[in-house]
Amino acid sequence: MPTDYPQPSFVLVRPQMGENIGAAARAMWNFSLDRMRLVAPRDGWPNPKADAMASGAGRLLDEAQLFETTADAVEDCTYVFATTARQRGLTKPAFSPEGAMKLAAEKIANGEKIAVLFGPERAGMENDDIARANAVINVPVNPEFGSLNLAQCVLLIGYEWQRQVGNYENERIEMAKTIWASQGESEALAKHYEDRLEEAGFFYPPEKVDSMKVNLRNMWSRMPLTRADVQMLHGVLRQMVRWKDKG
Amino acid sequence: MPTDYPQPSFVLVRPQMGENIGAAARAMWNFSLDRMRLVAPRDGWPNPKADAMASGAGRLLDEAQLFETTADAVEDCTYVFATTARQRGLTKPAFSPEGAMKLAAEKIANGEKIAVLFGPERAGMENDDIARANAVINVPVNPEFGSLNLAQCVLLIGYEWQRQVGNYENERIEMAKTIWASQGESEALAKHYEDRLEEAGFFYPPEKVDSMKVNLRNMWSRMPLTRADVQMLHGVLRQMVRWKDKG
Repeated sequence: MPTDYPQPSFVLVRPQMGENIGAAARAMWNFSLDRMRLVAPRDGWPNPKADAMASGAGRLLDEAQLFETTADAVEDCTYVFATTARQRGLTKPAFSPEGAMKLAAEKIANGEKIAVLFGPERAGMENDDIARANAVINVPVNPEFGSLNLAQCVLLIGYEWQRQVGNYENERIEMAKTIWASQGESEALAKHYEDRLEEAGFFYPPEKVDSMKVNLRNMWSRMPLTRADVQMLHGVLRQMVRWKDKG
Repeated sequence: MPTDYPQPSFVLVRPQMGENIGAAARAMWNFSLDRMRLVAPRDGWPNPKADAMASGAGRLLDEAQLFETTADAVEDCTYVFATTARQRGLTKPAFSPEGAMKLAAEKIANGEKIAVLFGPERAGMENDDIARANAVINVPVNPEFGSLNLAQCVLLIGYEWQRQVGNYENERIEMAKTIWASQGESEALAKHYEDRLEEAGFFYPPEKVDSMKVNLRNMWSRMPLTRADVQMLHGVLRQMVRWKDKG
């Protein structure tokens, strides 16, 4: 059973190698997408090579919908994107993957049905397929070298979909279960080092004592210390003193 | 000749199949990245299977820098990211690909040298490699199904790099006045502390030695150290030893 999760359908148009269909299924399922449609796969359907490659994402292939033409495949959709490596002569809005999946997410939230077309390996889509699309998606590859394969193209669009709908508010995922040192703990650490280093004769010559102390405090205060770091750094210093005392 | 274009280095750590190294080169070059570094490729180097797969991106392999250890590979870098599928127990900042490449773009605009580590197929990186990194990048794949291969992981990070520098192209590149410590300098500092603390009997009891050393290295690698900080921290340690010797 496909998930209930509202999402675009990914339509593979006349895909050739079964392996690539399987790899595309895996690429989709990495980003929780599971609505695959196939238009006239070259080697028929089902295809054992696709199954072998899909491994954990085989369910997507079992549930894939099969169509004879691109027109049939997108008949129930309200908005269709076609991925294409290069700009064609066609007059059509062109989106970055980001712009396209942002628009797709908005439309899907409004109850629309969205499809993304992916052309066959090598040849790419025919203009007749692209003509069925409302807009194209241009992946901004190096103009001197565009060599995305089918699964990679599916992967990038899937990634952008996930980026648009996922929990990306926080770019920086916080360190799991980290207990940060409090200001008081950092302060106590700074004092511990300052006191021992004073005894050890670190602050020298006299005219530099103040700036050396400021630099040291400043360093501790700039460091993103966890409570465990602080304990370890206390331990380091205590051990050095113990070593000295044993002489 | 590599391009002059300022960019992160992508470091493949102990890659296994030559084909995957070639596919990673293609993935990079799709997004105009051409600084590949290799740490101890399993089947030696050069590798004809890598060349065959790289096709139009073969130049990246010819120019790839070869290293024996991850530490050597990132020695000249000021900030290192490690890509990892799952959150590890290590206390380290974790970024989304977007957040990571945004930070990388900022740092590179300030004249820093950045590396991104990619682990070997299947096995992934060892904690010892990840301990060398300042932060990790988590690709937000489906928690029930994460099956990115090496080239796909390279592709997604390359894509995010490309997305970010689109925004940075027009920003004035300003050299910061701060001189950040290189990875080699941080590494030397970590080793200095580890060696003296070993002598001082800090690593005890025996069953905890390894985890204590990893924690200590991990702490140094997380700290945003300037060259001046590193010099001061060497000085702190040297003074403690001098104190002991006088004692």
